[in-house]
Amino acid sequence: MKARKAENFHEWYPEVILSSKLADYAPVHGCIVFRERGYAIWELIQASLDAKIKAMGVKNAYFPLFIPESLLKKEADHFKGFIPEVAWVERKEGEGEERVALRPTSETVIYSMYAKWIRSHRDLPLKLNQWCNIVRWEIKQTRLFLRTREFLWQEGHTAHATQEEAEKQVRDALDAYIDLVENALAIPVIAGKKTRLETFAGAVYTTAIEALMPDGRALQMGTSHYLGEHFPKMFGIKYMTEDEQEKFVHTTSWGVSTRLIGAAVMVHGDDKGLVLPPKIAPEQAVVIPIYKDDSREKVFAKCEEVRSRLEKAGIRCIADYDESHTPGWKFAEYELWGIPLRIEVGPKDIEKRQVTAARRDTGGKSGIPEAHLEAKIAELLESVQKDLLERARKSLEENVVVAKTHGELVKAISGRKMVKAAHCGSEECEQKIKEATEGGTIRCIPFRQEKISDRCAACGSPAKHTVYIAKAY
Amino acid sequence: MKARKAENFHEWYPEVILSSKLADYAPVHGCIVFRERGYAIWELIQASLDAKIKAMGVKNAYFPLFIPESLLKKEADHFKGFIPEVAWVERKEGEGEERVALRPTSETVIYSMYAKWIRSHRDLPLKLNQWCNIVRWEIKQTRLFLRTREFLWQEGHTAHATQEEAEKQVRDALDAYIDLVENALAIPVIAGKKTRLETFAGAVYTTAIEALMPDGRALQMGTSHYLGEHFPKMFGIKYMTEDEQEKFVHTTSWGVSTRLIGAAVMVHGDDKGLVLPPKIAPEQAVVIPIYKDDSREKVFAKCEEVRSRLEKAGIRCIADYDESHTPGWKFAEYELWGIPLRIEVGPKDIEKRQVTAARRDTGGKSGIPEAHLEAKIAELLESVQKDLLERARKSLEENVVVAKTHGELVKAISGRKMVKAAHCGSEECEQKIKEATEGGTIRCIPFRQEKISDRCAACGSPAKHTVYIAKAY
Repeated sequence: MKARKAENFHEWYPEVILSSKLADYAPVHGCIVFRERGYAIWELIQASLDAKIKAMGVKNAYFPLFIPESLLKKEADHFKGFIPEVAWVERKEGEGEERVALRPTSETVIYSMYAKWIRSHRDLPLKLNQWCNIVRWEIKQTRLFLRTREFLWQEGHTAHATQEEAEKQVRDALDAYIDLVENALAIPVIAGKKTRLETFAGAVYTTAIEALMPDGRALQMGTSHYLGEHFPKMFGIKYMTEDEQEKFVHTTSWGVSTRLIGAAVMVHGDDKGLVLPPKIAPEQAVVIPIYKDDSREKVFAKCEEVRSRLEKAGIRCIADYDESHTPGWKFAEYELWGIPLRIEVGPKDIEKRQVTAARRDTGGKSGIPEAHLEAKIAELLESVQKDLLERARKSLEENVVVAKTHGELVKAISGRKMVKAAHCGSEECEQKIKEATEGGTIRCIPFRQEKISDRCAACGSPAKHTVYIAKAY
Repeated sequence: MKARKAENFHEWYPEVILSSKLADYAPVHGCIVFRERGYAIWELIQASLDAKIKAMGVKNAYFPLFIPESLLKKEADHFKGFIPEVAWVERKEGEGEERVALRPTSETVIYSMYAKWIRSHRDLPLKLNQWCNIVRWEIKQTRLFLRTREFLWQEGHTAHATQEEAEKQVRDALDAYIDLVENALAIPVIAGKKTRLETFAGAVYTTAIEALMPDGRALQMGTSHYLGEHFPKMFGIKYMTEDEQEKFVHTTSWGVSTRLIGAAVMVHGDDKGLVLPPKIAPEQAVVIPIYKDDSREKVFAKCEEVRSRLEKAGIRCIADYDESHTPGWKFAEYELWGIPLRIEVGPKDIEKRQVTAARRDTGGKSGIPEAHLEAKIAELLESVQKDLLERARKSLEENVVVAKTHGELVKAISGRKMVKAAHCGSEECEQKIKEATEGGTIRCIPFRQEKISDRCAACGSPAKHTVYIAKAY
């Protein structure tokens, strides 16, 4: 690692990803290659979230990558919102077929099927999810995991008989995301509603979770939308109630993407490389033999015993027996990889019937009696997981500044802080904040409202609610 | 079900898929929607195969959907093989960028990265796999699961120091496919090598597994290719040996796709609908209450007890308590769905402390004592799985005909049989077979060679080997 996180965050970020082999730039402009370690993090995120999604009674399905232009255009706001980033398939010569887009999101193609499948109240709720690739032809500079022309995500799409049931689904999905991000990725989030200006194209309202990155920018970690009867009216998704009335369904959609990996890199990493929370770490522990020629055999055997015991206990554990590298080289390499625990085994450890565990996050070392190996390592991993979240929570608290005046607001944003402030709720004022702060936007109106002031920090009009403001990725 | 499988197979096939809700036609031409039950089968196939892939030391990764034209063109045979089906992204106005294709397969984009990542013998073997969507702009009529413009698959791509190691990987991958298809999908296959004419574009040789469908057509179920140093030379994938010589790597690629689902539908289904092998059935058993008003409560409670016990035992089990449908309606519905076992619970069963299990494949019914519920149901599921494979194996044997003369060969193919015959090995003769049989091709040169004749059945020249010939999907 050459770049320093605190000094040059925007060089540090790609460097840590490339050198720890999480990902690489693809040979096609604006695209990413997920290497095996980066993809393994995604698989762990998927496994965790997929279980939560299935527990909500949502089933997985798969809809086409291709969306006919007429479908994409059916909901005007939606189309307007996405059109600049839509990629289209070249039409073959002489083919009279309609132009087709590569999905920038799948509401339209999914609703065209829901209109066909939903007839009666017995068909509701219909709750489907898909894990897939998404295409948005970004013009701006690529940022690995955060902004690429293709990325991976899940998108849930549900249809309900009533508004109440749909709104509950919107919140349940967001709660699942909060659980995932805070408890698996160890990143604290602020949950709330988006302002009209920041609402998903075509939604009645959007809820979201926002996290704060070390450079003072907010990163939207997940969104959950209530779409009302808006799309159903355009697509004709109607059902017959029990007393034979024809009604429109209420729909929701919600998603998180591979940008979550980028957030975990940014929040936890340091100048030595990645720091991965144990729950999403492809390897949770690495065993390293410390040996001389005469102890080699004994030490290797003990290492293998340790690795195998931990593996059997369900801990993702590797060992490195490569004799062409020194232990010191290996320490640095696996620190770069962000493996939460390093387990050293040397002749002295064997004598004491122990191993030495070193935490990646704090560097703290401790002797672990062999007799309690599995339980103690599991405990240590839990501590690392918990402490990473706590540290990130503290950092979030330290980097949120309450602003009561226009001057305070502008100063805080330019000082790379996230601002908590009272706001009047006017779109005009919201636009002016963006101009005055050179890009700061209202990230959300948090569900947990607290009273800061009677007056809007930006314009002095009567305050409507408290909001979080930051520049965003 | 209106169509009869034996009488009108090509109407029966889409009808059974649509009516059992496995899949649907998408709103864009030539595409499929995988509905939740169809996708659940794919998830079960994925889980089974992914474990086998990881056991071979292969890791998952993800490479871009987009391939620059220059990369796709780099290997001339490969490009020539795929060009007619390649879909391209429309270029944005004023954008000076290179034209990009949607991946018809990923060798080229992956090799461009391997050239960057592989430097030394220490980087080998490099074994990656990806689960992804694939685009081939088919002009022919769509067949659900079998031929659509987008489908899902996995593609393994490995690079090795030696030919020997690479060839072992080719065979290991094919063995994993044989295990999957025979033991999970209950479809017997013929494994062998492709003739030059049928080899993957750019490969040194292709191995494949072939299955026989009820209409006498072969379906290629999976392929595993040895690509030699062919692509590595084009892409410059070189490594430094231990004694510091520069050498090219040897590569392999191998894949199976969602067409496997179509094969399982075709091979096992009947006039009542799907018949799913238990290992890939989203629901392995359905519990149906048989009750009158006075026994309703008691029967429902017992059904729920049965369902819950089976679920705890790891059996995928649902129960249907819908009172607006008769048991008879439910029997028919779940037969259509292909659920391997139906479990009936009525007052008489409760009295006898048993449940009644009915097999979807044979219709056979048996009483299962409550005391041995989990074990007996698990046994029954195993029997169904085994019997389906046996039945399919018998059908395969009955539908393979040995041909010793040109006349026999042509007659057998036109009679919807698969032909086993001696062949001279000449491409010219192979082409003539295709013409004479109106599309019959050499499906493979089986690994298990048996001597049929000294003379080629088609041309009478000296025989080189025994082959299987059929029309194919």
